[in-house]
Amino acid sequence: MSPSDSVLTGSAAMARALDLAKQAAARGEVPVGAVVTGPAGQILAEAGNEVEMRCDPSAHAEILAMRRAAAALGSRSLAGCTLVVTLEPCPMCAAAMVHFRLGRVVFGAYDPKGGGVDHGPRLFGRRGCLHRPEVVGGIREQENAALLRDFFIRLREPGN
Amino acid sequence: MSPSDSVLTGSAAMARALDLAKQAAARGEVPVGAVVTGPAGQILAEAGNEVEMRCDPSAHAEILAMRRAAAALGSRSLAGCTLVVTLEPCPMCAAAMVHFRLGRVVFGAYDPKGGGVDHGPRLFGRRGCLHRPEVVGGIREQENAALLRDFFIRLREPGN
Repeated sequence: MSPSDSVLTGSAAMARALDLAKQAAARGEVPVGAVVTGPAGQILAEAGNEVEMRCDPSAHAEILAMRRAAAALGSRSLAGCTLVVTLEPCPMCAAAMVHFRLGRVVFGAYDPKGGGVDHGPRLFGRRGCLHRPEVVGGIREQENAALLRDFFIRLREPGN
Repeated sequence: MSPSDSVLTGSAAMARALDLAKQAAARGEVPVGAVVTGPAGQILAEAGNEVEMRCDPSAHAEILAMRRAAAALGSRSLAGCTLVVTLEPCPMCAAAMVHFRLGRVVFGAYDPKGGGVDHGPRLFGRRGCLHRPEVVGGIREQENAALLRDFFIRLREPGN
């Protein structure tokens, strides 16, 4: 990886996505955070899950961050942009990345049950997929996985 | 089909979805329209594609209609509800239907290239799919397919 890659995948953007995930957990949301960076590495948009807040099961962090990034750019295309997210995207979010023509997705924890990139339908690998973002998975994997695991453990505790 | 099924799939809701698709075409959107009906057949929410208008590639008619229906019900679950849409949903919208726990989807034209229900990843048929809406496809198929075909023919005409 070049130094700029390392900034995008390993430190600043993923650190911010982790912060957003923790803020989501504090609101009672499944802790997932996402950041969209532009070609120069600048943060264009960010979001945590807002499913409960909005009463909208499609309000995943990735969808919200891409929507905000497209609005910020005034463009329907996120080619040249990177989405950094704490968890492997689900099929809905992976398919949305195709529609947004996203350049690259960098994710933290793998999601064998709910993921749609490296698991399940593996949407970008399918014949006929109209756009294939570059994929980098497993960044700060342990830390990202622990955040989710701890959230669901607390959710199952008596009184919750 | 029972009489109430026939109302939902064959006439009122699909006729309204077709109207919404035509209105979308008049705005320069890909002509897709969607209606969500409640358990008694009442229309809870509706939408046409708003991708261009919102500069948001995730603003498909189905996503918008489900989001509005959940807001109208004050519930994240659309169990017992039917989404009637003019075109076979794409993988993004099909996966969103799983998240919304949609009861049933009724669609018009089949989409062999872009569909995610009866084509492509066939998301509801996958092992591990957490929720499977009932699916009825091919309602007013010729009329729905013609609307899309005519739109794309006009789009390719000189001057467009």
